[in-house]
Amino acid sequence: TIYVVTPTYARLVQKAELVRLSQTLSLVPRLHWVVVEDAETPTPLVSALLAASGLRFTHLVALTPKGQRLREGEPGWVRPRGVEQRNRALDWLRGKETAVGGERDPPPEGARGVVYFADDDNTYSRELFEEMRGTRGVSVWPVGLVGGLRFEGPQVQGGQVVGFHTAWEPDRPFPLDMAGFAVSLPLLLSRPGAQFDPTAPRGHLESSLLSHLIDPKDLEPRASNCTRVLVWHTRTEKPKMKQEEQLQRLGRGSDPGIEV
Amino acid sequence: TIYVVTPTYARLVQKAELVRLSQTLSLVPRLHWVVVEDAETPTPLVSALLAASGLRFTHLVALTPKGQRLREGEPGWVRPRGVEQRNRALDWLRGKETAVGGERDPPPEGARGVVYFADDDNTYSRELFEEMRGTRGVSVWPVGLVGGLRFEGPQVQGGQVVGFHTAWEPDRPFPLDMAGFAVSLPLLLSRPGAQFDPTAPRGHLESSLLSHLIDPKDLEPRASNCTRVLVWHTRTEKPKMKQEEQLQRLGRGSDPGIEV
Ligand SMILES: O=c1ccn([C@@H]2O[C@H](COP(=O)(O)OP(=O)(O)O)[C@@H](O)[C@H]2O)c(=O)[nH]1
Ligand SMILES: O=c1ccn([C@@H]2O[C@H](COP(=O)(O)OP(=O)(O)O)[C@@H](O)[C@H]2O)c(=O)[nH]1
Ligand SMILES: [Mn+2]
Ligand SMILES: [Mn+2]
Repeated sequence: TIYVVTPTYARLVQKAELVRLSQTLSLVPRLHWVVVEDAETPTPLVSALLAASGLRFTHLVALTPKGQRLREGEPGWVRPRGVEQRNRALDWLRGKETAVGGERDPPPEGARGVVYFADDDNTYSRELFEEMRGTRGVSVWPVGLVGGLRFEGPQVQGGQVVGFHTAWEPDRPFPLDMAGFAVSLPLLLSRPGAQFDPTAPRGHLESSLLSHLIDPKDLEPRASNCTRVLVWHTRTEKPKMKQEEQLQRLGRGSDPGIEV
Repeated sequence: TIYVVTPTYARLVQKAELVRLSQTLSLVPRLHWVVVEDAETPTPLVSALLAASGLRFTHLVALTPKGQRLREGEPGWVRPRGVEQRNRALDWLRGKETAVGGERDPPPEGARGVVYFADDDNTYSRELFEEMRGTRGVSVWPVGLVGGLRFEGPQVQGGQVVGFHTAWEPDRPFPLDMAGFAVSLPLLLSRPGAQFDPTAPRGHLESSLLSHLIDPKDLEPRASNCTRVLVWHTRTEKPKMKQEEQLQRLGRGSDPGIEV
């Protein structure tokens, strides 16, 4: 089973993003979608969407603590997003967290499986999931349209990862995007302390998890020795709502009873 | 058969968009994808993607004439996009245009079918296609995140379209987004002159086709009398390539042999 962990938060494009991601995931056999809402309690929109998706899923919630976002003396600091949510999913996989919907039991003792962190706005080729399915430790591949580059990804020689193509701090232990690796479930469960560090410096979030799990030289290259791009770090424009605000002032806004 | 007409043009996110759209379409039975490249000749990227998609498809090309884009004395004018491409697809359906790949023969004489214009960047629920399948003339439904509103769409009373929710020029004959209607193939073929007018004023492109085909009061409401949003006018951010340009100047740009 591939456990796909998706943090998500309420915004205008949320339903669109989750619909197209759920449709992609529905093409993948033996998949379990772990959706973690950045919310205090589950929302009707996400709950209904999951129920209608036809996917095996678990619904969790984890509100990003507001206080953690801004820190004095760190003006350029952008807190990484989705961290509390991904850690909550790790807690659930370890039997330390209760689900609010879907399958509540964590994977049974000794279960095989792979864990992949799939943000709600990226674009995934269905082929990617077959590439990661056989992950023994941590598998890796390139990610398109990320880090100001056409792609970032591991450099492979003789079937081994020998470096990373990236423009930004190439000396990070794992200069990989969140969408560029998957972890075997048994490995993850064998390291109870392995999780994402919400205080990691920018670009070091992935390393904060992976450093607990593996040596960079043991990464398993996938996608034809990391020569094929099967996932893209797309971002969706925030829709403009100027007309909506004008009509709402006139009492003629879009029917709030219609979910978008 | 649903003929889904998609104009597309080369840009960084093109493959990502077409991959996720093709995956959505692969969930829909009895569908034929008519992809029209804004290019002089078919590109290897699109040709390979179509061949690998597993979909029934036809590949066409239609280059947007550069001269048509800017006109003197029309500073705020934004030429609508994808027009030549959609018209080329209509030509193919009418047996007046040769395909460059995929199924070359147009639908056989007397074939039933529905034509839908699906831009490559919107988000489509698989349910939308079942809503449009029974179209007799022109069917309509709401579109999310368009026109500065949460959604635009027809207003329905007693099963009939009696108006349109829109903020912009509500007196247009058909104040509908391209993603908000489908046309029956026999109707389209019975009106050989029906096509999109590339010189139509902004917001009047849809009307330029539909005025040839139907009276607004005969539109067939779908999606629970136009109360469900099953398509979203999403737009994808243009990725920043600052680091790519820097690395390229150093001769260390992303491997151009890897398709993104
Ligand atoms: O306040 C937030 C912002 C983002 N996210 C989720 O975290 C992931 C990464 O966020 P985003 O895509 O905005 O980050 P970026 O594209 O900038 O890496 C996505 O699945 C979001 O839905 C979240 O749960 N709460
Ligand atoms: O020069 C262009 C610009 C756009 N398009 C296509 O035309 C459709 C509408 O374009 P776009 O999504 O950019 O328009 P908007 O979102 O602004 O309505 C899309 O399928 C594009 O791929 C095209 O073929 N050539
Ligand atoms: Mn993102
Ligand atoms: Mn668009």
